[in-house]
Amino acid sequence: SRELFVLTYGALVAQLCKDYEKDEDVNTCLDRMGYGIGVRLIDDFLAHSSVKKCRSYSETADMIAQVAFKMYLGVTPSVSCSSAAGNEFSLILDKNPLVDFVEELPAERASLCYCNLLCGVIRGALEMVHLTAEVTFLQDRLKGDAVTEIGITFLRKAEDRKHKRN
Amino acid sequence: SRELFVLTYGALVAQLCKDYEKDEDVNTCLDRMGYGIGVRLIDDFLAHSSVKKCRSYSETADMIAQVAFKMYLGVTPSVSCSSAAGNEFSLILDKNPLVDFVEELPAERASLCYCNLLCGVIRGALEMVHLTAEVTFLQDRLKGDAVTEIGITFLRKAEDRKHKRN
Repeated sequence: SRELFVLTYGALVAQLCKDYEKDEDVNTCLDRMGYGIGVRLIDDFLAHSSVKKCRSYSETADMIAQVAFKMYLGVTPSVSCSSAAGNEFSLILDKNPLVDFVEELPAERASLCYCNLLCGVIRGALEMVHLTAEVTFLQDRLKGDAVTEIGITFLRKAEDRKHKRN
Repeated sequence: SRELFVLTYGALVAQLCKDYEKDEDVNTCLDRMGYGIGVRLIDDFLAHSSVKKCRSYSETADMIAQVAFKMYLGVTPSVSCSSAAGNEFSLILDKNPLVDFVEELPAERASLCYCNLLCGVIRGALEMVHLTAEVTFLQDRLKGDAVTEIGITFLRKAEDRKHKRN
């Protein structure tokens, strides 16, 4: 039963909205908190999912959607690759359990990324398996979009870049 | 998998510790947030537990321990009645999943009731089924006690008291 989690998350967001006037600051804070959570959650994920090492960004994106989201949120986003280079992916959620108790964002919080913690969690967890990624909300049903879409862009590792330059 | 919830709860407590210098203020805030959550969670609980109306305080305490704790936290506290009047109960937890990632309270946070949200949740949920109760931590393993003990004292309803006085 995820309702206690979902409501507790709502209390966290509400508290941050009290603490920070600007939506951007709330978003940053949620992302940073999420990062700290992802860094710790990865151990639990690896221990309970018994997944094998992913061999491509595509496999990694599928793993996040089909195993991690299922395990922690009970939903499975669909995945699409959105770049020819094969390093940009979208996770598309028809249903986002984290907003079950949220009807809409208040007018004065129009730029809030309510679920931004999730981006940080994904980013933190990936970091721990040596993958650097940018993770952001591209669409959000809370903002009137048809679906909720999380964009993951895998970045080349600093070492790779350095290597290329030499 | 409750780890994401447990870590998110930790982020909430950490944020409140940033916001409030005094442990008492953090405890009050957690209790108040919990109350708001309990008030909303009760519908979910009644919808998913298919429990029947409790006929005594004792039955209610058992229901909280055996059904609600099991459903939302995956643990079943033992229950003991601690007053001759039959309105005071203790829920005793050998294992508290909410503190899975907490090793110990920092020295400067010795009065923090880390899990105080739970007290508020119980209080809020009971209020919605017309039961007024005081709910507090009596023992806490995080503070060096052998077990974690939540005390629930059911209070006579204001109407009962009024009726008696007349």
